[in-house]
Amino acid sequence: MKILDIRDCTIGLDGDMRNALIGFSDHTVSLVAIISDQKRNGKPVVGYGFNSIGRFGQSGILRERLIPRLLSIKTDELLCSDGSGLNPEAVASTTMLNEKPGGHGDRAGAVAALELAAWDLNAKLADEPAYQTISKYFKLNTTDNSTETYAAGGYYYPSDNETKFVDELKGYLESGHHSVKIKVGGISLSEDLQRIEEALAVIGSGKRLAVDANGRFDLEKANQFAEAIDIYRLRWFEEPGNPLDFELNRQLTLHFPIHIATGENLFSLSDFRNLIRYGGMRPNSDIFQMDPGLSYGLTEYQNMLKELESAGFKRQQCYPHGGHLINLHVAIGLGLGGCESYPAVFQPIGGYSPQTQLQNGRLTPSDAPGFGLEQKENLYPLLKSLSGLI
Amino acid sequence: MKILDIRDCTIGLDGDMRNALIGFSDHTVSLVAIISDQKRNGKPVVGYGFNSIGRFGQSGILRERLIPRLLSIKTDELLCSDGSGLNPEAVASTTMLNEKPGGHGDRAGAVAALELAAWDLNAKLADEPAYQTISKYFKLNTTDNSTETYAAGGYYYPSDNETKFVDELKGYLESGHHSVKIKVGGISLSEDLQRIEEALAVIGSGKRLAVDANGRFDLEKANQFAEAIDIYRLRWFEEPGNPLDFELNRQLTLHFPIHIATGENLFSLSDFRNLIRYGGMRPNSDIFQMDPGLSYGLTEYQNMLKELESAGFKRQQCYPHGGHLINLHVAIGLGLGGCESYPAVFQPIGGYSPQTQLQNGRLTPSDAPGFGLEQKENLYPLLKSLSGLI
Repeated sequence: MKILDIRDCTIGLDGDMRNALIGFSDHTVSLVAIISDQKRNGKPVVGYGFNSIGRFGQSGILRERLIPRLLSIKTDELLCSDGSGLNPEAVASTTMLNEKPGGHGDRAGAVAALELAAWDLNAKLADEPAYQTISKYFKLNTTDNSTETYAAGGYYYPSDNETKFVDELKGYLESGHHSVKIKVGGISLSEDLQRIEEALAVIGSGKRLAVDANGRFDLEKANQFAEAIDIYRLRWFEEPGNPLDFELNRQLTLHFPIHIATGENLFSLSDFRNLIRYGGMRPNSDIFQMDPGLSYGLTEYQNMLKELESAGFKRQQCYPHGGHLINLHVAIGLGLGGCESYPAVFQPIGGYSPQTQLQNGRLTPSDAPGFGLEQKENLYPLLKSLSGLI
Repeated sequence: MKILDIRDCTIGLDGDMRNALIGFSDHTVSLVAIISDQKRNGKPVVGYGFNSIGRFGQSGILRERLIPRLLSIKTDELLCSDGSGLNPEAVASTTMLNEKPGGHGDRAGAVAALELAAWDLNAKLADEPAYQTISKYFKLNTTDNSTETYAAGGYYYPSDNETKFVDELKGYLESGHHSVKIKVGGISLSEDLQRIEEALAVIGSGKRLAVDANGRFDLEKANQFAEAIDIYRLRWFEEPGNPLDFELNRQLTLHFPIHIATGENLFSLSDFRNLIRYGGMRPNSDIFQMDPGLSYGLTEYQNMLKELESAGFKRQQCYPHGGHLINLHVAIGLGLGGCESYPAVFQPIGGYSPQTQLQNGRLTPSDAPGFGLEQKENLYPLLKSLSGLI
């Protein structure tokens, strides 16, 4: 097999909403295509990937550093031992040639887009959904073809907040979601509590409602908030404070029974290890949300899982950030707790294809080869235009 | 005052050498120019900055995210209260609009280049060297106009290693340096020890020779190395392990008297705070090397210094990574321990202008306004071509 070309483009995402800290309207994503010389079912095999959601496209890093490194060596050096596909670890490490340790930010997403495209390519070469390829590669023998999901929404919108909010939550339940996550920390505590009560009136049980502060609070405010929501027995309290403030996280896990969810803004094994060492995370309780698409891809994510399990945690405590087809396949293939859904936002990257089934709070992807990104109707034209080969 | 334009270009650096982990030949730097409508001495005032050394240019992040944010608001919103120049904190925070917390990597360098250009601009508006502007801004009343330096070299070169190595060190002493830093960890322990002894034969005292492993060792190897070099009583042992492995760092500070130097690959206040919390760094002993040019600029660096001093450390323990004119002015203006010099490498960004005096191991910059980058003969044509205004 030979890599004929690697391309990228930057695409915008739908959404004029805010969380407690930021607006999303100028966020972008890098879509990449690894074009091989192979054919399956008479069609050229192209692997597609992207760097998840919530950050930015990385065309500069991709074009100036990572893609030239991959294209400067022979494809043979990137193949897995039996030659049946790319070795994702070799793809990731080649992109990182002459990069220093530390500073895990934008680069981590750019590497991830390419490494994930290698998984899509491999699954297509094997003519199977990516979750099967992932499961086999890591020798997990996953038998499930579905995973738990929850609707991540409840953003702060510039107008029509109240009606929009309640209608939004009702819609999630109607479409088959059991659980919902909403944003907190962007308005006053009393307003947030009122919003939580409005949500509970729709959702029914606190066990099915999580809240996400997106790192907004200092320790004092996080404590106040945790105390104020204690009575609701919510599903989890996500990113109470700065994602690197492990001591704040530890204080909350010490003093409140509510599950703490964090990790989506830790972009490397090194950063994740520090969460394990210092963050006070509790086995069988707290939730890990590292996102392979923002943190060097699945190879690095698998190393995080090893670290997690050797520290006494279970992979079922992992719900990767980023509600899209790639993380759906990752969650099933690796046997994680589940993945999130953004039914209403971050299109065309967010959300699932029409062939993806949502029933009783569980998602089942189609059996399209790879991540099945081509089945997303609003993504298809972008993939086609990027590779020129659909 | 109005900002008329903000421009950037990416430039390559001289150097075919390696440290223990990486080669430097494809490293680049972003040079930025903030062009104002002001004139001093009949010339347009332009602030120049760059994102230090050892990483990469950030044209993608600058052009797609940061520069458009700065140019989308009125200059008035970026001015300091008396209108006499830019407010560097406002510049940095405006570039970070809608950016999430965590993930402090490439972005941190891109922000820094712009924030540092604001300091250059302000110093030129005040018609004074940048160290004076910095000192006044932070109300430090620094009286020194010079700072300690050491020659950072002793890289692993592809050929002619031995002769080149000894000649290099001799040259440092002849040019006025008292202290030298060399790379370790890229060859076997016994070969490195031989190299250290060769260096000591030139330099004379272990107190004037530091070694830098660039994060190469795991804990076992770092312990072995620290034990093996104990007899030499060296100046410091730099980045023994992964910069985010605070526990490894703590173990070394617990068991060895040698000063540990680290921090150049921590790019934010949050990461630095974790070094203070978990890294075992010792007041009056260990060395901090955070580099403003890689970590959001001087505003963030000043916040690190506050954190450092409130934890019982002294700012004289700080020797920023990156031997260039910007960090020379930073070290003098903030009263730090000193700064490094790369006499032989990383041109045209590394090294100092001919007007910079080196005597008895101390550097004195010229009184050119700003960072005096225009006085570097190999940088001048690049600045001129970028702004079109010299």
